[in-house]
Amino acid sequence: VTKRPLRIGIIGTGFMGRVHSHAWRQVAAHFDLPVMPVLHTVCGRRREPAQELASRYGWHNVTTDTTALIHDPDIDLIDITAPNNLHADLAIAAAKAGKTVACEKPLACTGANADRMARAVDDAKVASFVWFNYRRVPALALVRHFVQSGRIGRIFRVQSAYLQDWLNDCDSSDSWRLQKDMAGGGSLIDLASHVVDLVRAITGCEFLRVAATMRAFKSCRAVVPQARTGDDVTDGKDALSPSRGQPECIDTCLPWGDGPVDVDDALAITADLSNGAICSIETSRCATGHGNDLAFEVNGDRGAIRFRLPEFNHLEFWDNTLPVVERGWRRITATGSAAPYASAYWPTDHALGYADSFTNTAADILRSLGTDESFSPNFDEGRACQHVLDAIAQSAAERRWVELSQRISLPVGH
Amino acid sequence: VTKRPLRIGIIGTGFMGRVHSHAWRQVAAHFDLPVMPVLHTVCGRRREPAQELASRYGWHNVTTDTTALIHDPDIDLIDITAPNNLHADLAIAAAKAGKTVACEKPLACTGANADRMARAVDDAKVASFVWFNYRRVPALALVRHFVQSGRIGRIFRVQSAYLQDWLNDCDSSDSWRLQKDMAGGGSLIDLASHVVDLVRAITGCEFLRVAATMRAFKSCRAVVPQARTGDDVTDGKDALSPSRGQPECIDTCLPWGDGPVDVDDALAITADLSNGAICSIETSRCATGHGNDLAFEVNGDRGAIRFRLPEFNHLEFWDNTLPVVERGWRRITATGSAAPYASAYWPTDHALGYADSFTNTAADILRSLGTDESFSPNFDEGRACQHVLDAIAQSAAERRWVELSQRISLPVGH
Amino acid sequence: VTKRPLRIGIIGTGFMGRVHSHAWRQVAAHFDLPVMPVLHTVCGRRREPAQELASRYGWHNVTTDTTALIHDPDIDLIDITAPNNLHADLAIAAAKAGKTVACEKPLACTGANADRMARAVDDAKVASFVWFNYRRVPALALVRHFVQSGRIGRIFRVQSAYLQDWLNDCDSSDSWRLQKDMAGGGSLIDLASHVVDLVRAITGCEFLRVAATMRAFKSCRAVVPQARTGDDVTDGKDALSPSRGQPECIDTCLPWGDGPVDVDDALAITADLSNGAICSIETSRCATGHGNDLAFEVNGDRGAIRFRLPEFNHLEFWDNTLPVVERGWRRITATGSAAPYASAYWPTDHALGYADSFTNTAADILRSLGTDESFSPNFDEGRACQHVLDAIAQSAAERRWVELSQRISLPVGH
Amino acid sequence: VTKRPLRIGIIGTGFMGRVHSHAWRQVAAHFDLPVMPVLHTVCGRRREPAQELASRYGWHNVTTDTTALIHDPDIDLIDITAPNNLHADLAIAAAKAGKTVACEKPLACTGANADRMARAVDDAKVASFVWFNYRRVPALALVRHFVQSGRIGRIFRVQSAYLQDWLNDCDSSDSWRLQKDMAGGGSLIDLASHVVDLVRAITGCEFLRVAATMRAFKSCRAVVPQARTGDDVTDGKDALSPSRGQPECIDTCLPWGDGPVDVDDALAITADLSNGAICSIETSRCATGHGNDLAFEVNGDRGAIRFRLPEFNHLEFWDNTLPVVERGWRRITATGSAAPYASAYWPTDHALGYADSFTNTAADILRSLGTDESFSPNFDEGRACQHVLDAIAQSAAERRWVELSQRISLPVGH
Repeated sequence: VTKRPLRIGIIGTGFMGRVHSHAWRQVAAHFDLPVMPVLHTVCGRRREPAQELASRYGWHNVTTDTTALIHDPDIDLIDITAPNNLHADLAIAAAKAGKTVACEKPLACTGANADRMARAVDDAKVASFVWFNYRRVPALALVRHFVQSGRIGRIFRVQSAYLQDWLNDCDSSDSWRLQKDMAGGGSLIDLASHVVDLVRAITGCEFLRVAATMRAFKSCRAVVPQARTGDDVTDGKDALSPSRGQPECIDTCLPWGDGPVDVDDALAITADLSNGAICSIETSRCATGHGNDLAFEVNGDRGAIRFRLPEFNHLEFWDNTLPVVERGWRRITATGSAAPYASAYWPTDHALGYADSFTNTAADILRSLGTDESFSPNFDEGRACQHVLDAIAQSAAERRWVELSQRISLPVGH
Repeated sequence: VTKRPLRIGIIGTGFMGRVHSHAWRQVAAHFDLPVMPVLHTVCGRRREPAQELASRYGWHNVTTDTTALIHDPDIDLIDITAPNNLHADLAIAAAKAGKTVACEKPLACTGANADRMARAVDDAKVASFVWFNYRRVPALALVRHFVQSGRIGRIFRVQSAYLQDWLNDCDSSDSWRLQKDMAGGGSLIDLASHVVDLVRAITGCEFLRVAATMRAFKSCRAVVPQARTGDDVTDGKDALSPSRGQPECIDTCLPWGDGPVDVDDALAITADLSNGAICSIETSRCATGHGNDLAFEVNGDRGAIRFRLPEFNHLEFWDNTLPVVERGWRRITATGSAAPYASAYWPTDHALGYADSFTNTAADILRSLGTDESFSPNFDEGRACQHVLDAIAQSAAERRWVELSQRISLPVGH
Repeated sequence: VTKRPLRIGIIGTGFMGRVHSHAWRQVAAHFDLPVMPVLHTVCGRRREPAQELASRYGWHNVTTDTTALIHDPDIDLIDITAPNNLHADLAIAAAKAGKTVACEKPLACTGANADRMARAVDDAKVASFVWFNYRRVPALALVRHFVQSGRIGRIFRVQSAYLQDWLNDCDSSDSWRLQKDMAGGGSLIDLASHVVDLVRAITGCEFLRVAATMRAFKSCRAVVPQARTGDDVTDGKDALSPSRGQPECIDTCLPWGDGPVDVDDALAITADLSNGAICSIETSRCATGHGNDLAFEVNGDRGAIRFRLPEFNHLEFWDNTLPVVERGWRRITATGSAAPYASAYWPTDHALGYADSFTNTAADILRSLGTDESFSPNFDEGRACQHVLDAIAQSAAERRWVELSQRISLPVGH
Repeated sequence: VTKRPLRIGIIGTGFMGRVHSHAWRQVAAHFDLPVMPVLHTVCGRRREPAQELASRYGWHNVTTDTTALIHDPDIDLIDITAPNNLHADLAIAAAKAGKTVACEKPLACTGANADRMARAVDDAKVASFVWFNYRRVPALALVRHFVQSGRIGRIFRVQSAYLQDWLNDCDSSDSWRLQKDMAGGGSLIDLASHVVDLVRAITGCEFLRVAATMRAFKSCRAVVPQARTGDDVTDGKDALSPSRGQPECIDTCLPWGDGPVDVDDALAITADLSNGAICSIETSRCATGHGNDLAFEVNGDRGAIRFRLPEFNHLEFWDNTLPVVERGWRRITATGSAAPYASAYWPTDHALGYADSFTNTAADILRSLGTDESFSPNFDEGRACQHVLDAIAQSAAERRWVELSQRISLPVGH
């Protein structure tokens, strides 16, 4: 019997366009799927990169017209990897056209837009998916399994830091990620979105309130967030205290070439979670020594567990129910039959990589579409995450605790 | 030539009494000193433990009378290791009696008392010392050296967590540390004091403002700090939201035997430092998997450096000025001639231990007393640290940012 | 312009058949290549697995007839992933048919067969390739780069251990790898082959002589190798000393289901290298705690470097030319532009995986075929490796040092 | 009641003299002992260093006359830390004088002398002790406990490397350790002695046979061991093959200042143990990157365990009886009540150091003398270790396997 084809149209040809293409192309080689992905059309702003992507990954068609793509009756699923500011309009149009919609994280630049998107897929009764790929790194999926099965017990502490350092090299040129109008924010939108999603998914807890501080460190872009409020709460003498509306620079290297950049570089957050746990979060693009380092740890009364992205195939577990002399951090390898997703690939103890987490996501999307299995996160959850990000930004700008209770009331999902 | 003797009277016979005794007894075996420590008298509340300490470590005399000790004309230095709430009165009395005063950390339970103590040694013109021993762990002293000599460059991020887990074992019985009237606080006073001192000492930065959240997790002691303010800022529905004045328990194990315990178990802090850096701090006594784990990291534009207490003899350094392909976290061993203090002991690559950090502190105290070398931290610095702790407690209780600018205006010292 | 196609016929549908298929399918997505691989035909002993592999990875045709495949004029390259004992005949037939030959490691079961294979490709003047994939793990390729560019200096020590533990689970059923007639040997052939190849490739040194001890630990297969020689060199009293021809069992778990297994489980080797360095090698399939752990370290007078397979994307470098206080093991991440091959994939600090090392090998094979770039290892080098393995087996069986000087006189290659 | 005093006379004032002094001085502060050590007399070749040691550590008397010391009726125990070549005569004289004898490792320079020493204490019926201090590093004592209590199961593999790198710095001046007549050998005597002792003590296995290769790398001392035999087994063409009696130099840095040095720098050993396990050992003083790194690992069918000296307070344990998904290397901290000896010091998770392993040894010596508890290793065990070292040297010199069966027939002890 031939499996039902699922014809995909992808928007965007950047880094994420490549990784999604890789996932769609690879997924059926590794996984047994109820529907068969067809790499139907790639759509880019410019034709050449789209052509290039098509020839490398096997997309059958190329277009530069998003509207045509979205309304093409031969396409079943629209996969959005365009810059963040385009997510909302594209996803809403796709939903209205009756397409299944998959959207790269973060769902949107603002909670308001995320609300519109969630409403649109709801109204159109189409399935929706957000590519928070880290949920499907086998080791992190195993972390979630340990937590959800009670091995950590009552959670007291959640700590996560997503640290990068590429902004320390002054010639970084990943431009749209440094433009607020396209990216929606800096480390907040790009990195904290992952952390907030993981905290909710792994612990099953909701954010109650947040207090955050935010910083931009580079010359031509050192708009200290609170300065924008016009509300100078300090005594005017410290290094961070600009005269009203005239942000002082924290100049550390050569100016950026592309003109003013207006997104945050780093962020620290203290949060209360709904179960009483304390949650501490950091994100940065200037954290020298951390190229791409997402750390996640949960500590409870029965155990503790942690993961670091540079140790992609490993997690560490502490079983507090063992005799004292046998307790210790145990490094578990999440490959082979020992971990979610990993058995689809190679025998145990053969390393998987970053791109495989996208392939795993594609597998679950296709399974969900071919069965009645639900998929998490959908747009509702993406929306909940977005409101936490909004609260963080507000907290940093107004320098106060912001309560989340009015903003989100969603189940955390599975 | 015979060296001038420095006759010591020690108060307290607990864990710290033992470690200080070890330090005074050992220091002259390892270090060349301008003055010779004499273990003159040990003073305890009860005679037997004092006698025991004397016989093990070689104290010549034993007493149970602090007043007599403090006014003994044959004693030059009073070393205070009694519970925190006794520090202020003992130190002030000793200063008035013209004695040199060394005080175990934290200097006091409150900033107000620390102010009184600093004033007392100032008025009496006696030398004062605070035993923040971690400053003199060779690896941490080397961390400070790298930072102060510019190898990290402009600092963007400071992260520190002092995590312990002994409160997860319900039969913990270290009672006075769980009584607010004796300890002054929980993880805040015991653990955050070390972190605040290290941040100031290593970075040379001052705390500008702090936002903190604090938690007590155990049954009979689950006074959620903000509840005490009678200011119910939440909507009454979340797990942390008690009805007015009736704190809800977060019950995770059997009740403590000793009756109500009223100190915090865990704390998370977001802070702004005077140079523009973001500082993230956590402390906990319920952090399963972290027996006694003080982590400290500084990231700047030229490099990064970090230390963890379980890796007592090591630090990690990232040199961002190297070619990209050669950059990496470099594990440096702080022993032998390669690190401060360590050359006093054994050849390179022979492990030192916890107690040696006290011996190193004793060595610097004695050097300072025999020369015109200054010692840091003295009571002025201990006082500055205490005010940061006060601000953290206030921030958690009132759930708002607290500015430090009015509280401390001291040089950070060396 | 359209690139020249390179039509591939693959033999074998097991684990290696899958990984090679993945590599041929993926290579053009990541690498810019002078020739275009075409997945022409897959050949298996049984049709179904071959069909399955074809449908998953995109092979255009399926056959069960190796002779037809080898003589198919539409095929340019024969890729051999069949069990070791078939390598020689298949490769020689392919060479005689004028095909380019790529062969999974080890090249053969014996040095004699490897000699025949090297002669065959030489006589036929066809290009030959051995898939020692670990050479093209980016981190190991970077290790080689550091060594070859003089950063380690004069080499004193080479240490490598390839440890696995799957034989401790008694229901392991990877049968042909446990049959001497198909596999050629146990950990010697499967694991030591990698180590010997890497020592030669990374250090550029030749093995001068080896002393080895070999062991089989399981019940129905505990033929202690030296017992087979009928030469009982021991005094008959120790645990390893069987009565003549009646090997004593070292019984540790349930018997294997498949009847007698006659390959070694573990091996330790001491070797002298041609530059005067000492080389220590271990391999095992019973090394509990080491699922798939290839460790490699080189120490010289200017530095040291090491790699471990579970840390797939990392290596550690020690620069001994730095000031003492700055020396330390530096963990370098071999991703992005910082490492060989890695730039073909994702931005820096995004993990690659095991399968990518095969894709990198495929890329170099195709580059070599499309240009005049040479490829290492070819059959000549595979042959040299095989003779070292023969010497190791002989050393263990005869319990004496075996000199390599008469056996190999080949340049180590690039 | 006053405890019986045990009056100690120590010989030697070097590094070991200092560490033993520290141990004798400290032991009663930490441990409850049946007898009370008295630091009676220190004896040095020159008076000044002895005087210095006495004043730092509290020795009551100083002498330069070993004979007087040994025959002093006021002394109960002679502790020997003089260079290795003096051990035999001093220990035998002490035994004959009826003294208890404690001797720094290795017991002697040769098996023959060790035999004489063991006979002497036996004849004199005096207690004997060898300071193999690593046995009493808490983490290694815990390793032994896990192995002996069956947690590792049947042992398949023992691997140990004791690596140092100080010979790479050409101005190293620890002269007597580089003179064969005083030291008895190089890394063999100094480092392999520890390894051989640990293998026997931890596994309870005996060495059956050994094959070793040995090397000296430095200019003025590059006597390749086998060259001394006048038996040129190689074909004269390789780098290691000197013409008869004319050793070729492997010149890597400036010549040593002190003239010819005639001890080995590095060693690799393959050994068969009495239970069928394979044992792989390396020692080196030129292993760049390993300042003082003793690694020890045991792998069996129920688990595995390992230790590394730079991680002084930790060990790693792999429990193979756990479900596959929970298996992993578990880092256990050997402090506080969780480990042998450690509870005598500080609460759990406070680091101990190198010198404490000597204090622990002193405690066990004193306990053994005050009770009927036996102590291991005594001279009988020291002697067994020495014969393994002799076999290793012979194996390297004659380039063949050497059987141990005729040499040692001792119980391994407790």
